[in-house]
Amino acid sequence: LRRDDARVPHGARRSSGSLTYRSEDELVAQLREIVEAQPANRRLLNRIGDDAALWQPSRSHRAVITTDALIESRHFRRDTMSFHDIGWRAMAANLSDLAAMGSRPVLATVALGIPDGLNAPDLAELYRGMLAVGKRYACAIAGGDTTRASELVISITAVGEVRPSNVKGRAGALPGDVLAVTGPLGASRAGLDLADNPYMLAPYLAQAALRAHRTPEPRVNEGRWLAASTNVHAMMDVSDGLSTDLPRMCAASRCAAVIEDVPVADCAREVAHARGEDPQAYALAGGEDFELLIAVNVRAFRHLSERFTKRFGRSLHRVGHVRKGSGVTIVRGGAEEALESTGWDPFR
Amino acid sequence: LRRDDARVPHGARRSSGSLTYRSEDELVAQLREIVEAQPANRRLLNRIGDDAALWQPSRSHRAVITTDALIESRHFRRDTMSFHDIGWRAMAANLSDLAAMGSRPVLATVALGIPDGLNAPDLAELYRGMLAVGKRYACAIAGGDTTRASELVISITAVGEVRPSNVKGRAGALPGDVLAVTGPLGASRAGLDLADNPYMLAPYLAQAALRAHRTPEPRVNEGRWLAASTNVHAMMDVSDGLSTDLPRMCAASRCAAVIEDVPVADCAREVAHARGEDPQAYALAGGEDFELLIAVNVRAFRHLSERFTKRFGRSLHRVGHVRKGSGVTIVRGGAEEALESTGWDPFR
Repeated sequence: LRRDDARVPHGARRSSGSLTYRSEDELVAQLREIVEAQPANRRLLNRIGDDAALWQPSRSHRAVITTDALIESRHFRRDTMSFHDIGWRAMAANLSDLAAMGSRPVLATVALGIPDGLNAPDLAELYRGMLAVGKRYACAIAGGDTTRASELVISITAVGEVRPSNVKGRAGALPGDVLAVTGPLGASRAGLDLADNPYMLAPYLAQAALRAHRTPEPRVNEGRWLAASTNVHAMMDVSDGLSTDLPRMCAASRCAAVIEDVPVADCAREVAHARGEDPQAYALAGGEDFELLIAVNVRAFRHLSERFTKRFGRSLHRVGHVRKGSGVTIVRGGAEEALESTGWDPFR
Repeated sequence: LRRDDARVPHGARRSSGSLTYRSEDELVAQLREIVEAQPANRRLLNRIGDDAALWQPSRSHRAVITTDALIESRHFRRDTMSFHDIGWRAMAANLSDLAAMGSRPVLATVALGIPDGLNAPDLAELYRGMLAVGKRYACAIAGGDTTRASELVISITAVGEVRPSNVKGRAGALPGDVLAVTGPLGASRAGLDLADNPYMLAPYLAQAALRAHRTPEPRVNEGRWLAASTNVHAMMDVSDGLSTDLPRMCAASRCAAVIEDVPVADCAREVAHARGEDPQAYALAGGEDFELLIAVNVRAFRHLSERFTKRFGRSLHRVGHVRKGSGVTIVRGGAEEALESTGWDPFR
């Protein structure tokens, strides 16, 4: 899980050690600079920045490749999650990146670092969790690498395929576009908070929160469907929280965004209330929901939304709109405020 | 590096903890059983076991995907290798797996776990090392993931392409085949041992050993060339040492092998002498040489070998032959002995 270090105050700059990155984005920008000094490769159609890399195995095919590492001390706690669920989440994070590119999953490879004390049944459960969510979306595990490590490391790389005409990315949002997400936010965060205080919620809400946290559903079918629409201009997943990921879409698209309303999951609203926090702020900062964020042609949004609901039995939630400029603001009490990035960042 | 835990006596069974695998092969066999319970995927052409997975993006294309994780406490020491060289080795290990499948590298993704205290210049050097060897073989870095971790973790996944007719694997060796490697063995191990005792060798031999250890050359061009020959029946890299990898080829091919002679690198011979060890045994156990092991039609070997030398300016070294049965034996003093697996195993 990506938010278990929420004890680090948001916005605090690391002071110890000599790692001087203020954020993951800053680090990625530096690595991107080094990598992009490589000679261009005509088969490689994008570079670091999108949820996944895009390449061209042949003229009529596009393959998408993504990688995501979960590290025990940072992303999950064995005391609050089963090995099955740790495996599920690790695979789901990769499938969500494939979904964000509008692609159909094909296969995944798994590199495991295995600490002392992890036994064979635990490892089998970890694999069963990965396979369980992989199977839903026809993503096979094709191989991998195993080695010892001082903490549990799960590094998954997943490959998908997408029709050339369906390729989206973060960079296509246009001024005027409607911003929408494929589901209410904050449920995974609520499930995490629930681990420390299980009696905060009524049982049916607790169940929803824990399910969202432990066995989140990547929006693979929704992503493929949305990618097929020319009215969807940009797409990404909000795995680090809307307050972190929307600014990334804006930066990639060189435009600004206004958040009008944040759809909050019922369980997240209750947990926020119990903690005396603002539900919208709580949901904005909540990562790992694996919902998709899209920028849609304003004239097509209503029709697309109706068709989406008919197809998937769930709604597209309008969160705001795109405009010229840069930065993200949020409407609060009728006035616009600058958005603070409160989502998950491994380097903060 | 894969042999830094050589202090663990070879063959010793782990007694502490509850991880009960005797070897990496045993663990992989268990995971393979779980994974192969998946419904068959007609686009996925092999499963766990070869150096890389093979899939079919379209009828006329085959893609190869491999993943390899390096973990600080297990695979390398920052005090004996620069970050540049750590990056080089990590990428070279993946390129070697692509070479073993006879494929042309296309791209790689990099997942990094970054410990406290690693600074920006170190990380840049790590990337430059990866890019330096990647560039030689036109393998671009296409993206990745970065997160914090308690030790340095470098997990690389690389993708290559191979003509359907050129696909080799470990499983094709036939009784009667000649076994050969693309270069003498043990140099990387000699470079590792040199780190602890730098004055063991004459400078020119020391340089060769350190180069083999720090910036090994994956046999990408050799692998593609050999894969194009129908007389090459099986191919793999010997990254865990011939004494570990040859039994794997035999098991996959359901046949036996006899080692007649082990080609020992000059620097490895000197280090073995200095340590009072048998040079052939030293080279047999030396991992990370990244040479390729092939099984070749006996009638074609001489001609193939001559063409290989003409093409690459280096020799194919005959190490033995394949026969019916199971297990690997080695000829010593005119008599055959059973081979002990002395190569690197992360679980021993």
